Amino acid sequence: NNNPQKPKQRHFRTTLYLDDGSSLHPHLGPYFSDGQRRVDYVLAYEIEKPSSIRHRSSRFSGNKFIQRLRRSFNRSSSRAALHPKADPEIAAQEQRTDYHEDDKRFRREEFEENLLEMGLELEKDERSKIPEMGFVKIHAPWNVLCREAEFMKLKMPTKKVLNPSTHHQFNVRQFIHKVTAPLHPKIEPSRPQNVKSLCHPFSREKQHLFDLSDRDRFFDSKTRSSIVYQILKRTRCTKAKYSMEWACYSVFYKYQPIGLIRKYFGEKIGLYFAWLGVYTQMLIPAAIIGVIVFLYGCATVDDNIPSMEICDPRNNITMCPLCDHACSYWELVTACGTARASHLFDNAATVIFSIFMALWAVLFMEHWKRRQMRLNYTWDLTGFGEEEQDEKVKLTCTDRMPAYLTTMVTMCFLIVLTFAIVFGVILYRISIKAALHMSNYPAARSNIRATVKTTAAIINLIIIIILDEIYGSIARWLTTLEVPKTDKSFEERLIFKAFILKFANAFTPIVYLAFFRGRLVGRPGKYLYVVGSYRMEECAHAGCLMELCIQLCITMLGKQLIQNNLFEIGIPKLKKLLRRRKSDLDSKQEEELNRTMQRYEKDHFLGPFVGLSPEYMEMIIQFGMVTLFVASFPLAPLFALLNNIIEIRLDAKKFVTELRRPIAVKAKDIGIWYNILRGLSKVAVIVNAFVISFTSDFIPRLVYQHMFSPDGTLHGFVNHSLSYFNVTDFQPGTEPVEPMHLGYKVEICRYKDYREPPWSSTPYQLSKDFWAILAARLAFVIVFQNVVMLMSDFVDWLIPDIPKDISVQMHKEKILMVEVFMKEEQGKRLAAQDNQNQDKCASPSSDNQSPPQPRSRPISHAN
Amino acid sequence: NNNPQKPKQRHFRTTLYLDDGSSLHPHLGPYFSDGQRRVDYVLAYEIEKPSSIRHRSSRFSGNKFIQRLRRSFNRSSSRAALHPKADPEIAAQEQRTDYHEDDKRFRREEFEENLLEMGLELEKDERSKIPEMGFVKIHAPWNVLCREAEFMKLKMPTKKVLNPSTHHQFNVRQFIHKVTAPLHPKIEPSRPQNVKSLCHPFSREKQHLFDLSDRDRFFDSKTRSSIVYQILKRTRCTKAKYSMEWACYSVFYKYQPIGLIRKYFGEKIGLYFAWLGVYTQMLIPAAIIGVIVFLYGCATVDDNIPSMEICDPRNNITMCPLCDHACSYWELVTACGTARASHLFDNAATVIFSIFMALWAVLFMEHWKRRQMRLNYTWDLTGFGEEEQDEKVKLTCTDRMPAYLTTMVTMCFLIVLTFAIVFGVILYRISIKAALHMSNYPAARSNIRATVKTTAAIINLIIIIILDEIYGSIARWLTTLEVPKTDKSFEERLIFKAFILKFANAFTPIVYLAFFRGRLVGRPGKYLYVVGSYRMEECAHAGCLMELCIQLCITMLGKQLIQNNLFEIGIPKLKKLLRRRKSDLDSKQEEELNRTMQRYEKDHFLGPFVGLSPEYMEMIIQFGMVTLFVASFPLAPLFALLNNIIEIRLDAKKFVTELRRPIAVKAKDIGIWYNILRGLSKVAVIVNAFVISFTSDFIPRLVYQHMFSPDGTLHGFVNHSLSYFNVTDFQPGTEPVEPMHLGYKVEICRYKDYREPPWSSTPYQLSKDFWAILAARLAFVIVFQNVVMLMSDFVDWLIPDIPKDISVQMHKEKILMVEVFMKEEQGKRLAAQDNQNQDKCASPSSDNQSPPQPRSRPISHAN
Repeated sequence: NNNPQKPKQRHFRTTLYLDDGSSLHPHLGPYFSDGQRRVDYVLAYEIEKPSSIRHRSSRFSGNKFIQRLRRSFNRSSSRAALHPKADPEIAAQEQRTDYHEDDKRFRREEFEENLLEMGLELEKDERSKIPEMGFVKIHAPWNVLCREAEFMKLKMPTKKVLNPSTHHQFNVRQFIHKVTAPLHPKIEPSRPQNVKSLCHPFSREKQHLFDLSDRDRFFDSKTRSSIVYQILKRTRCTKAKYSMEWACYSVFYKYQPIGLIRKYFGEKIGLYFAWLGVYTQMLIPAAIIGVIVFLYGCATVDDNIPSMEICDPRNNITMCPLCDHACSYWELVTACGTARASHLFDNAATVIFSIFMALWAVLFMEHWKRRQMRLNYTWDLTGFGEEEQDEKVKLTCTDRMPAYLTTMVTMCFLIVLTFAIVFGVILYRISIKAALHMSNYPAARSNIRATVKTTAAIINLIIIIILDEIYGSIARWLTTLEVPKTDKSFEERLIFKAFILKFANAFTPIVYLAFFRGRLVGRPGKYLYVVGSYRMEECAHAGCLMELCIQLCITMLGKQLIQNNLFEIGIPKLKKLLRRRKSDLDSKQEEELNRTMQRYEKDHFLGPFVGLSPEYMEMIIQFGMVTLFVASFPLAPLFALLNNIIEIRLDAKKFVTELRRPIAVKAKDIGIWYNILRGLSKVAVIVNAFVISFTSDFIPRLVYQHMFSPDGTLHGFVNHSLSYFNVTDFQPGTEPVEPMHLGYKVEICRYKDYREPPWSSTPYQLSKDFWAILAARLAFVIVFQNVVMLMSDFVDWLIPDIPKDISVQMHKEKILMVEVFMKEEQGKRLAAQDNQNQDKCASPSSDNQSPPQPRSRPISHAN
Repeated sequence: NNNPQKPKQRHFRTTLYLDDGSSLHPHLGPYFSDGQRRVDYVLAYEIEKPSSIRHRSSRFSGNKFIQRLRRSFNRSSSRAALHPKADPEIAAQEQRTDYHEDDKRFRREEFEENLLEMGLELEKDERSKIPEMGFVKIHAPWNVLCREAEFMKLKMPTKKVLNPSTHHQFNVRQFIHKVTAPLHPKIEPSRPQNVKSLCHPFSREKQHLFDLSDRDRFFDSKTRSSIVYQILKRTRCTKAKYSMEWACYSVFYKYQPIGLIRKYFGEKIGLYFAWLGVYTQMLIPAAIIGVIVFLYGCATVDDNIPSMEICDPRNNITMCPLCDHACSYWELVTACGTARASHLFDNAATVIFSIFMALWAVLFMEHWKRRQMRLNYTWDLTGFGEEEQDEKVKLTCTDRMPAYLTTMVTMCFLIVLTFAIVFGVILYRISIKAALHMSNYPAARSNIRATVKTTAAIINLIIIIILDEIYGSIARWLTTLEVPKTDKSFEERLIFKAFILKFANAFTPIVYLAFFRGRLVGRPGKYLYVVGSYRMEECAHAGCLMELCIQLCITMLGKQLIQNNLFEIGIPKLKKLLRRRKSDLDSKQEEELNRTMQRYEKDHFLGPFVGLSPEYMEMIIQFGMVTLFVASFPLAPLFALLNNIIEIRLDAKKFVTELRRPIAVKAKDIGIWYNILRGLSKVAVIVNAFVISFTSDFIPRLVYQHMFSPDGTLHGFVNHSLSYFNVTDFQPGTEPVEPMHLGYKVEICRYKDYREPPWSSTPYQLSKDFWAILAARLAFVIVFQNVVMLMSDFVDWLIPDIPKDISVQMHKEKILMVEVFMKEEQGKRLAAQDNQNQDKCASPSSDNQSPPQPRSRPISHAN
């Protein structure tokens, strides 16, 4: 019998304490006091009744894992008593005040007994340096690990090693690998990179297949902790009447090289970073093409006939006033600057870029699917089925109805609230504009547009950020009301609600700008008024695209800067500081503690891990900005790219240094986020179609060129797009107070619309051109939507979900596995053949009595 | 040792020979000559060189299984020699003439040796009653069955029995079950229906878990045959230089009660019948609503203002001639009948019905997904992964390029050919119509429309049916050119190609009728001419919807009647007859043979199973008819329903009595057909949107009511939809020869279009109304498409893919399984605890040396 204790010590330091000085204090390492058994999990609990409320809340609120555990205990003991509306956390806190320390200890002891019965080994440490806290260290012995690994169908490496074929077909891949070599992080691979162990679900009967030479390295620390977690989840208290307070902090470790984060945090967080990486990587081509489109706009701005016509003072077109009374007539030539700027974003290349971005979104999804598949293969998750969780609450539809109704009503109310706030900002803009127009300071007047736009956009941004936080809390509250059956369902419902609310919040002002602003203004002489006498705001002459751009720009930049810097870095740091302060220690004591505290005691001061949802949510909203309105803002991918390059490093740093180490959760995919991404990329197609055909002037220009232009060019387009208005048709009181503002008397002014002139038989009615252009716009939407959808489906179908080399390797592995079994089989069969001749009709149990030796024979097939 | 021979005999008769008199000849049953070992598989081969070509072709062509086997042998032996374009079947036939009987025997013997090495037992029967044929009967002994079952991860019933909970929540289900009780076939269940064995992938190490009391019943006949088939597929000949002729017919059994078909034919065919059942069942509500819509049309036909106006002789509207020269002016009142008939299909209810059918399609898909999940659970297929097949050919992209190019070119050519043929039929119609118009027989003239429509529709139908067969063969040929890597890939590519061609074939005439006919006619005085002087055909006054209806009706009825009766019943019977005739036996000899022939010899005369593709294809085309043009033909679901009720029984009968029993293939789903169905239901949304907005008069009527009508009703709609034409503007030679046909001189005639009148400043230009209505039509398409797509996605999201009761039961099973393992574990652990105290650091191999007795202990946990 070889003693497995020796390699343990060495292994422990290399994998867990890479960055830590704890090797200097071997007795402080995560071992039981015997120095032999490893600590796989630590449970923490309060010994005395907590003296202050703030203590409790800071320690327990937000730690999802504890909530989950606590909920599971509550439910199992008081399933019948739990009423449907009870938020488990609130319920637990209420109960906590009622029950005594005795009950808690009673339940705790029963739980510990149950854990012992499951084969776990415990060590208590009530004399820790943190007052009021007790810790139970848990060690899982070998046989328990084996048993649970078999239940969980963990895929473990067998002795068989797969040497990948050396005659690679994928020269392009190798080339790319070589080119990108400097970009790879420099990490010493733990085993030769081109050697991969064959993995097979662990089975105790087939132990001979696995490389068990070093039992302590066979299951790594993340597996061990998740095995213990599985047992904890299963274990229940049944004897005690009252629910017990349970607090369990897992062991978190500080700082790791960024490249190892996936290995360290488990698959779920690994997938998040992988996804973020793929997204950022895919943004590179989008950003490049976006910049090219923008540069194309810059280069062609001087060749653009409509803006040339607008800027030409010889055309001398007099426009109707933009507001009642205070405003006067103005000359089109003053809109020259805006018209030229609009061309930067509204040119022929934009349409192509929109189509490109729709396909880009599909390519991104496909690329991610393949990447996910590759990771699944590398991490041996293929065939791993998501563990179906226990249903903790049984409620009928009638029980759930009130909660669902509440959710529906609240969601509707919040969305209407969002609309109302956006409308409020519009009113603010209108009234400020009117007020400034009426003021007598010329300086104020000249800066009207800039002032109004900037303040409104900033107000919008602040409202968005504030509402974002509020909506997040409301979504969580609504989800707890619904009492979802499983944790997974809870998470999905929460994400879905939060997404709907935050999406509406972020995009309502943008949608208003893109599709409604400047459209609901009526016409000269018959304007549309809101709230008494305010005229609805109009866009600048060259369409609302320019303002949409500014809004998108401010939202993206502002949101990213504020949310990244303030919320993601500032607040966690602040919280950590506060948590330390709350433990009422002066700096000297603290230093003393720092030196002597166990690792898990130190980690207690770190922030809890609140799940990946906020990280994903931020990225998904950004993805929406990038895809939904890309037609109006080709630089969006570039902005997103720059943000994400920082974001990856920032998140990694946060997870490693600021938060407690989360439970290593297995996950095959990114779950509901993928569906949301799919939905967004579908919506993006139709939104872009509408932006191009209705917000930009693309279709009117096209129609003019092919239906009305005398020479097939855009010459005369500006004139054609303006309707005539006879100033005598102004309603009394709405005519400008300074009709002679321009220095001459105006009889006919122009406005941007397709209406019959005053001298036609049906003056100011929508003209035939209007209907023809409307039909063209709608036809474009149909064609664009269906063509892009077809192309997307085609791309989706063309790219296989499983990368070729992975599917080839999987197939190879399978063949090898069958070969291993067959070789083993053959030996058995030959031995059995003799018996068979003697006894052809063996009884069913005879096979079981055959000696098990052939199974344990080591397998040695060269590849 | 209990002798397993006794129950075998009984079991065999009950499951396999239910309908047969062979129990009178026990020695003729499928046993080896020792009467002990069961025949699990029969291979057949020709002993002498076949004397005539016709013999061979009738025996080998079309039998997919043989082709597959033969291909696999060819490939494995002459992989390098096979050039990419070679059709394996053709190649095999060519080679067959070159190689001698010796080579064949040589290879056959090697193959048999290999089979023996794999553990199978063989018995030869070369003195069978069929001349020139030899048979090899195969028996798989118990240990081989066990080994293969483990490899295939077959889920087998364990001893643990799951008693479903008696306190059902699903009262609705029980109620439905009771109500539909008379509809369930009366089959004696082999085990109590509400008892279900827990299933677990078979493992020889865990034999004690399974109920092996009767080894011969443990693996049923379908499992045994598919196990042998697995071994056959794996076994290869390597020694012989030449490819060998191989012919292997599986054992087919006649006639079974229809309800047992699934159990008898394996999962793949079972799924087909299940799918057909779900489809037929789902057609019932669609048919009912379709009939209601139709009846609504019938009921409101007298209240329909437009047809009332058309039929009112007081309106006295003179219409322009429908063809040049020969036709004359006509009065609108003569179109009264068509207008009234059109209302039956073109009314407000049609729009609602279209939306309903789009959602119906989604519901159908969802229902099927759930049904499939339920079947997967019942048949213990959950977790079963589709076996990845071996790649038989390695070809680079360059090798494949010519084949892909050929496919692309041929497919394009065939689709263009389809268009050309449809255009030919149009020309036929135009010319016949013109000829009949010019004839002097008044009888001929009055029947013009009816004659032309009917003959054209019948010609179309015949062309469709003929091309269908041709295209099927071409698709197969193209697929063999591509040399797909796996059989699954072969099947999918074939299906995809055949579907594209057959779909284009079936739907081109219908699409022409719905969207192009009557639209490309020009206007009076400026008609569109094709092939010299033929004017494009126009629709009857009330739109083309009526003709679309007739075409759909004829296609659906005709295709179903001819394909069902002639192709599915008639031709197989004929083939069977011919096959018997070819064996050159007179009736007396035949009778003699019939009495003495073995079952497998008799089955040799049955038709081969050619796969499920034709059955699915027929149903998918029908599904297309039902969903794509449902807006124009609400009775389509009814027709489909009536057809399918017969179809299910017919297919079942055909599979049971007319065809050889196919290999029991495992399948979790219906494969590519599901994707095709999804694609069709997506296309259906947009097609229906276009049919409603462009083919029917729904949008013009709506626009008239809301924009032009003086009183908000449809009064005056007919007049508004007709434009004016001044007869003096006819181009010379196109004016009618009989201008006084109506008895008065016509100065202004009317035609159906929205154009400016002759007295406007821009005569005969498209009017403002035209553009407004076009915009409305396009807007409707966008709204309809997106609303229906959104609703579909919502329904898709709302209905869980796994039925609730199934997911609950799966969860229960899992818990039970863990419990079983845990109880077993506990016993072990207690025993091991003593050892542990003595030797804490046991070596890894010690677990294997522990006695296996505890594992074989019978498990008996009451539920």
